[in-house]
Amino acid sequence: MAKTTPNHTQTVSGWAAHDSSGKITPYTFKRRENGENDVTIKILYCGICHTDLHHAKNDWGITMYPVVPGHEIVGVITKVGSKVKGFKEGDRAGVGCLAATCLDCEYCKSDQENYCQQLQFTYNGIFWDGSITYGGYSQMLVADSRYVVHIPESLAMDAAAPLLCAGITVFSPLKDHDLVEKGGKRIGVVGLGGLGHVAVKFGKAFGHHVSVISTSPSKEAEAKQRLGADEFIVSSNPKEMQDASRSLDFILDTVSGEHSLLPILELLKVNGTLFIVGAPDKPLQLPAFPLIFGKRAVKGGIIGGIKDTQEMLDICGKHNITCDIELISPHHINEAMERLANNDVRYRFVIDIAGSSSTPQS
Amino acid sequence: MAKTTPNHTQTVSGWAAHDSSGKITPYTFKRRENGENDVTIKILYCGICHTDLHHAKNDWGITMYPVVPGHEIVGVITKVGSKVKGFKEGDRAGVGCLAATCLDCEYCKSDQENYCQQLQFTYNGIFWDGSITYGGYSQMLVADSRYVVHIPESLAMDAAAPLLCAGITVFSPLKDHDLVEKGGKRIGVVGLGGLGHVAVKFGKAFGHHVSVISTSPSKEAEAKQRLGADEFIVSSNPKEMQDASRSLDFILDTVSGEHSLLPILELLKVNGTLFIVGAPDKPLQLPAFPLIFGKRAVKGGIIGGIKDTQEMLDICGKHNITCDIELISPHHINEAMERLANNDVRYRFVIDIAGSSSTPQS
Repeated sequence: MAKTTPNHTQTVSGWAAHDSSGKITPYTFKRRENGENDVTIKILYCGICHTDLHHAKNDWGITMYPVVPGHEIVGVITKVGSKVKGFKEGDRAGVGCLAATCLDCEYCKSDQENYCQQLQFTYNGIFWDGSITYGGYSQMLVADSRYVVHIPESLAMDAAAPLLCAGITVFSPLKDHDLVEKGGKRIGVVGLGGLGHVAVKFGKAFGHHVSVISTSPSKEAEAKQRLGADEFIVSSNPKEMQDASRSLDFILDTVSGEHSLLPILELLKVNGTLFIVGAPDKPLQLPAFPLIFGKRAVKGGIIGGIKDTQEMLDICGKHNITCDIELISPHHINEAMERLANNDVRYRFVIDIAGSSSTPQS
Repeated sequence: MAKTTPNHTQTVSGWAAHDSSGKITPYTFKRRENGENDVTIKILYCGICHTDLHHAKNDWGITMYPVVPGHEIVGVITKVGSKVKGFKEGDRAGVGCLAATCLDCEYCKSDQENYCQQLQFTYNGIFWDGSITYGGYSQMLVADSRYVVHIPESLAMDAAAPLLCAGITVFSPLKDHDLVEKGGKRIGVVGLGGLGHVAVKFGKAFGHHVSVISTSPSKEAEAKQRLGADEFIVSSNPKEMQDASRSLDFILDTVSGEHSLLPILELLKVNGTLFIVGAPDKPLQLPAFPLIFGKRAVKGGIIGGIKDTQEMLDICGKHNITCDIELISPHHINEAMERLANNDVRYRFVIDIAGSSSTPQS
């Protein structure tokens, strides 16, 4: 099981949850020396993902405390291992969810290492040396360079951070369904949060007709005027849902709370796909009839491979796509998490780890 | 609403259910004259589909009594309308679930008329003239020739009848996933009944490795020796299920009773597809995690278009594929339906409508 190995000699300041209260407090721990395949990154910003909240509170019963969350990490490379290719000191770099994979299976060999069965995550994982991984709520990270990406110069570092998880999570299904840089389809996005708002930006940048499906009528103006959505459908309004039936080619469902798939499936054309990226704890209710009578598909997926992540970032650089964020200082993490639990954020909290910004909002 | 129109002048003997007891008794009714696009068929055999049972008992609350069930119909053409192409008197013909579609929508125009929103079924539907459609538990059928197919000479008529619904229902997903006449994949079939046993035959004929997944260990010998399945996995045996995890490319789930999708999804490789052709009344429990962590898909579909149905029959003719049936005389329909409700049939009851066979089994 997990242990701290002898070469874990570097002392790092960070922030951790220590029990299921989920309360985050300062925490000092050790990281490994920079290995031959590693880069060391001075962390500048780290996004707060819903997954962080689940781990902090041990919602899934798998948390190894103390847990240092954070897998939307951006910073600057300060050290480069002897076998590392493509990175140098001073590079703007990002790290997402992946810390290690087997590098040998069919998925690792086909740039789908995110589906490797040996996958270890950036935090609450167990690295090859047996140590528990600690995430980006900390000032420094040692990362295997094979899971590190470049952040385009044109993107603001703080607003780019959530692309490493929220961004790739919605980009990957679009790519899989041949919807990247090819417009003309009718796409739906269920839920306008951290993932949903990026999905709308991608959909519009790629030339699609984008409908936001939400329980909150109050988000209509923002969805249309700020994010550029073409339509806004209130999911609790039967008439609006009925009017939109069989109208969409593809729907991204980003909602992780319990919800019925029946009305959402009815929005799809025949042969349409509902792609689930939220992860509800309880099984979803899947009615067979709309699936069968509409030859529809319900799919799921988790983040994306490193190659796709770099491609996404390059495309974001080209289209100038970043996330809409609220920047906070590290001593406001608990407050932010509480607001996140109440879906009170537009649209992603990002921690100003290094205090680089002169104007954090709180 | 439905009415009997003036041109319904032909008296037909058949069998109908008259109330939710589902009891089937002889019933005399009228059919329309043979129109210019119609063919008249002397019915020889009709399969008993699970759907017939649901309609007879009004399980779905949509039955218009009296209902004459039956949509696995084979017979001989006795009359041909003036505008009919491709059929002549004496032809061996089959009719499945479709009685009418709009002929004008994108689905009708792309040989997917089974997804037309104006679709009317062979029984318990409402035809263009306003009359209620009556199915194949009867001695004669007037059918729009656009929904009629040819039965290859090489196939026994009685054992071919269930191909019109059970056959096309499992063929269509295989075709959609490029699994017809192209071997080498690992396919699972959940449930070894009317649909499942044909799916196994297709899978083997097309050169795939076929695993049957069943709750009944007693079916193993038959699945392997009679139907040629390569593997038999008992779904209630956790070790067998665990050993088979991530091993299948594609699974056809033919079970219409309530069941959990979790263990079945785990059998799929990454990117694998679970295709549902059974129609459980209650929503299925769809756990998000195996979907997300395995990038899996759950799809559904209903029967297939007429072009695909003819293609399937031609392929069946080539490979000599028919259904394993129990032939019964019409006065044993109720007994057969009771046994069907208890899944006590190997694998499809077929009614010897015209008494053509000298040896009906009961």
